[in-house]
Amino acid sequence: MAGQRDQEPPRIVLGIDPGTVVTGWGVVEAIGGELRHVGHGTVNCSNAEAQAKRLSRIYRELTRVLGEFQPDAVSLEKVFFAQNVQSALKLGQARGVALLAAAEQGIEVHEYSAVEIKSSVVGFGHATKQQVQMMIGSLLRVSGRVPADAADALAASICHLNRHVFQARVADVMPKKPTPLRRRGTTVR
Amino acid sequence: MAGQRDQEPPRIVLGIDPGTVVTGWGVVEAIGGELRHVGHGTVNCSNAEAQAKRLSRIYRELTRVLGEFQPDAVSLEKVFFAQNVQSALKLGQARGVALLAAAEQGIEVHEYSAVEIKSSVVGFGHATKQQVQMMIGSLLRVSGRVPADAADALAASICHLNRHVFQARVADVMPKKPTPLRRRGTTVR
Repeated sequence: MAGQRDQEPPRIVLGIDPGTVVTGWGVVEAIGGELRHVGHGTVNCSNAEAQAKRLSRIYRELTRVLGEFQPDAVSLEKVFFAQNVQSALKLGQARGVALLAAAEQGIEVHEYSAVEIKSSVVGFGHATKQQVQMMIGSLLRVSGRVPADAADALAASICHLNRHVFQARVADVMPKKPTPLRRRGTTVR
Repeated sequence: MAGQRDQEPPRIVLGIDPGTVVTGWGVVEAIGGELRHVGHGTVNCSNAEAQAKRLSRIYRELTRVLGEFQPDAVSLEKVFFAQNVQSALKLGQARGVALLAAAEQGIEVHEYSAVEIKSSVVGFGHATKQQVQMMIGSLLRVSGRVPADAADALAASICHLNRHVFQARVADVMPKKPTPLRRRGTTVR
């Protein structure tokens, strides 16, 4: 049942870091309390390519990755800032085909702010790209250098997996049935 | 041959006006010097729908339209301005799946500024949305009201068809082999 699966914690998560030039992706699996690196990669587009062709390459590669790794969820970074309208528009185009690739395979998409994602791997929200890259390599025990955009994607998937670990811990600590309020709509004076 | 087809003037053009809430589309055919309305429509998305689901609906409907009308080219408006980064990003997402739909069927995309598109149907570049809507109805002899977003899409297709008509006229008027300049890089004093 779809409803039942939604409530189960995700086991395999695909993180995506869409970009007009480089799109990073990374798959992480949670086994027990452990995180395991499954795979990562980048889709590199040349500036010489027509926009539509670039988008087509991003879409096809992500569709292939989704098919290969069968993730339970997709996680990506919410965007709040951009240099200007043109760059926001182009980034939006890349995000659009990433969201579409997930939707076409019926996989739910979750979005987290950059601060949430960085906090989940480096411990604080204003870490540099390089710090994220280093921590990802160490956390997931990846031999060799992980490209920055793939590291960001792996961080997004860890962020989503961690949220469920924390939610489960919070649920264990909290009382099972919260005490109801005495009267609904009571105004505090 | 693909190369040969590229040089032929387009006969059927699909105009698209992508939007986060309403995406308009319109198909126009050029027969001789005449423009004929083939079809138009809109994809309406609710704000309550998840972004990925909306994008999936836009993509599927445009893919259906491309399959049904088999256009020679796709035409859409270049975007230079947006209210803010968030709206540029969302508009970009809708544009992304529209560009992808065309690319996945191997159809070339052409982009024109709003001024070029409005000029091609109303005669001046700063026409209102309503003026475009009225002129589209009259130019293409459409009975009944054309939704504003579909009218914008039809205008984009007319703009692309017209460019080829003008190019052919210019080619007729111009000497077949332009007289070469006496010396390259001559400066006018």
